[in-house]
Amino acid sequence: MGVKNGLKLGFILHGVGRGWDSWRHPEAVIDGSTNIDLYVKQAKIAEKGKFDFVFVADSLHIDERSMPHYLSRFEPATILSALAMVTQHIGLVGTFSVSYTEPFNLARQFASLDKLSRGRAGWNVVTSWLEGTAANFSRDHHIGHGERYRLANEYVQVVKGLWDSYEPGAIVGDKQGGVFLKPGTLHQLNHKGEFFSVRGPLNLDRMPQGHPVLFQAGNSDDGRAFAAANADAIFSLPRNKEAAFAYRADLRERTAAAGRDPDTLFVFGGISTIVGSTREEVQRLSAERNSYASIEGALLSLGQSFNDYDFSQHDLDAPFPAVKEEWLSSSQGNVKTVLAAVEQDKLTLRETALRFGKPMDSFEGSPEEVADQLQDWFESGAVDGFMLGESLPGQFEIFVEQVVPILQARGLFRSDYSSDTLRGHLGLAVPENRYVAQRHNAAETDVARKEPANA
Amino acid sequence: MGVKNGLKLGFILHGVGRGWDSWRHPEAVIDGSTNIDLYVKQAKIAEKGKFDFVFVADSLHIDERSMPHYLSRFEPATILSALAMVTQHIGLVGTFSVSYTEPFNLARQFASLDKLSRGRAGWNVVTSWLEGTAANFSRDHHIGHGERYRLANEYVQVVKGLWDSYEPGAIVGDKQGGVFLKPGTLHQLNHKGEFFSVRGPLNLDRMPQGHPVLFQAGNSDDGRAFAAANADAIFSLPRNKEAAFAYRADLRERTAAAGRDPDTLFVFGGISTIVGSTREEVQRLSAERNSYASIEGALLSLGQSFNDYDFSQHDLDAPFPAVKEEWLSSSQGNVKTVLAAVEQDKLTLRETALRFGKPMDSFEGSPEEVADQLQDWFESGAVDGFMLGESLPGQFEIFVEQVVPILQARGLFRSDYSSDTLRGHLGLAVPENRYVAQRHNAAETDVARKEPANA
Repeated sequence: MGVKNGLKLGFILHGVGRGWDSWRHPEAVIDGSTNIDLYVKQAKIAEKGKFDFVFVADSLHIDERSMPHYLSRFEPATILSALAMVTQHIGLVGTFSVSYTEPFNLARQFASLDKLSRGRAGWNVVTSWLEGTAANFSRDHHIGHGERYRLANEYVQVVKGLWDSYEPGAIVGDKQGGVFLKPGTLHQLNHKGEFFSVRGPLNLDRMPQGHPVLFQAGNSDDGRAFAAANADAIFSLPRNKEAAFAYRADLRERTAAAGRDPDTLFVFGGISTIVGSTREEVQRLSAERNSYASIEGALLSLGQSFNDYDFSQHDLDAPFPAVKEEWLSSSQGNVKTVLAAVEQDKLTLRETALRFGKPMDSFEGSPEEVADQLQDWFESGAVDGFMLGESLPGQFEIFVEQVVPILQARGLFRSDYSSDTLRGHLGLAVPENRYVAQRHNAAETDVARKEPANA
Repeated sequence: MGVKNGLKLGFILHGVGRGWDSWRHPEAVIDGSTNIDLYVKQAKIAEKGKFDFVFVADSLHIDERSMPHYLSRFEPATILSALAMVTQHIGLVGTFSVSYTEPFNLARQFASLDKLSRGRAGWNVVTSWLEGTAANFSRDHHIGHGERYRLANEYVQVVKGLWDSYEPGAIVGDKQGGVFLKPGTLHQLNHKGEFFSVRGPLNLDRMPQGHPVLFQAGNSDDGRAFAAANADAIFSLPRNKEAAFAYRADLRERTAAAGRDPDTLFVFGGISTIVGSTREEVQRLSAERNSYASIEGALLSLGQSFNDYDFSQHDLDAPFPAVKEEWLSSSQGNVKTVLAAVEQDKLTLRETALRFGKPMDSFEGSPEEVADQLQDWFESGAVDGFMLGESLPGQFEIFVEQVVPILQARGLFRSDYSSDTLRGHLGLAVPENRYVAQRHNAAETDVARKEPANA
């Protein structure tokens, strides 16, 4: 099984729980989102399951109504650096917004994480879509949607440029000769663009992965275009296999159109699993999970995608409210999906909230049945892999102990790590340093010039 | 021995070495400044020696002429989070500039570090004084010296305000009652100042230390005033015991004048040590250390304090060059100290560079002699403690094995940790949350109003 074409698995660390009311489960850890022991435990389970990576989501604005996991949680760069020391192989992917962190600082923290984890860093690129965020960062207004992706594109170019500051092997440390840094191998970027002016160089030399792996979660037209141009991986919460297939097909087409090999952009489906040994147990667990999905929580979750709109002011069983202009400046892909479904199925607000405001969908059944569903989606080309969340406390450990061995026995998933880096797990090449590449190209041009009549 | 009044010890992690040429030592680790194994090893040695903290310095701008340790090194938030997982007691202090990081992001990373280290975070507040730094952060000009400290004062107020967002015990997680967050215990900051507008709240609840410990390194008038108003600890590189005494006395006076107990600002002297078992060995090691201090390195180091001025263009043995206006916008305390010495002692450029461009001064001798010097400075009131750097590879381990036991036997230094937090080691109280304090004050006023005639 080539790693590049094998099934890929990531796990989202959700601390206290990934739904609005999952903290009320008897085994939910109340301070789970800032509990280092819980994070260490889950990261170790994921590594035991030979997962490609663990994933830390993020946001930069809360109020009293925020979801428990959002209210108080570890910051990604710090928690991932900590987890690097208690794991050996698993990738460490963290969410960072391009909206409110200087590219120099971000480039540095990811390079540092890649160094100290020996090549396991991944950056989930987001444009912060909560309107309230601007007020935490001395800004009057949040950046508009179109401008945001122009900024994101430029930002990624700056960060990649900074990561190339040092050529590989620049620091020679020749003690006899007295040469620490090989002359001419440290480069200024001298970027001057619409949003940023960054001279460089970065004060961290070439990292194990060359560049950390780039993730993105996007559903809008701009988001998909951004991923096709920049990302190594993208994930979404698919409604069903057909929608997932269409999403992946669209992204592969866009990636090819952007001049890239579509096999270098991996599409992850966000799901959770409920595994039981009998049909009755599965039904009981499923009902238990649903009992923690309150309508109040679903309304709040839905509101987040609609620019923090307060849906609780409307009648739950009346038709979905008329479109407000403010919704359209928000997370566009989600809003469009919801409004299309409302239009087509004539949904009430309650129906809409329960359909779209719930946590990720689940694959449910015996270990074999869950493995069957994962295999079916993967082999149908609906996904390249899955971003797993935990449906109920304990379910992730059960997945690793009972479902992973089946995937391994079927030859779908690795039985052990064959690499120590995240790029290695995913089968992604280490990007060549741009200055080395320039010299290679110049040398080839030179050779071609010297041997013009050889063909 | 009360912890508050005991000798305090910190260790600076310097990776490849703290001088310009120390990397040429046969045992220097060439990639030491990005070598996780070396950082882990040194942090563990410091913890074995019961040190109060390890310290990570930082800067945000390099070029080909930069000092080896500056060229490529770990970023503080990431490396300290990593070290938190391989140590249990020792404090973790990192340098962050107020000039180029959003206060919301900084408040969060330190709160996260404090959470995952269970109360061991410290923030060394700096204003970035290298002119070239601005060009890495989309700024035309670096901020002037006076404005910089006004900004730093406001910044610290914002960050402290964000750290108070959650009252202690705000997250109750009452599963039966369905109350996750106790109403009224999460507060917006609503800061609007000259430089920042930050609404809050921070998305991290009360951390073990309340606020991380605040460090500062400052010599200028503005820097000392800032420390007197804000810092828990300050450090400098003293020229001799008398200068150290005067520095500490001045800071204690300023701290009292700012309305604080002077015993809550600890003054650290930056030194290194050379320990040998015979006089001959000490002399040999001292000569070895000096052999790695090149005049070229000393000139570059001196230039850094003078706004990156290139001193190599001047005759080494001519009188020190005439004052340039650009020097005065730089690291003012250092510039004044150097120019005063040049004036008084009629120094040449070479003499100035060798006196001021060298790494920290050393205490040298047998273990007892080095302990004597530490004790003398401490008991004379010249310092509250020392920030130790390593003079030569291996010397830090020798210090921990041979000098620390003497300090312990003399009752000057702890024999074991009596606390798990940095505040605990230093004997500093956990600051009361501002909203809790407001209620306490209101209640006291209320009591006083009800019992007006009791006296």
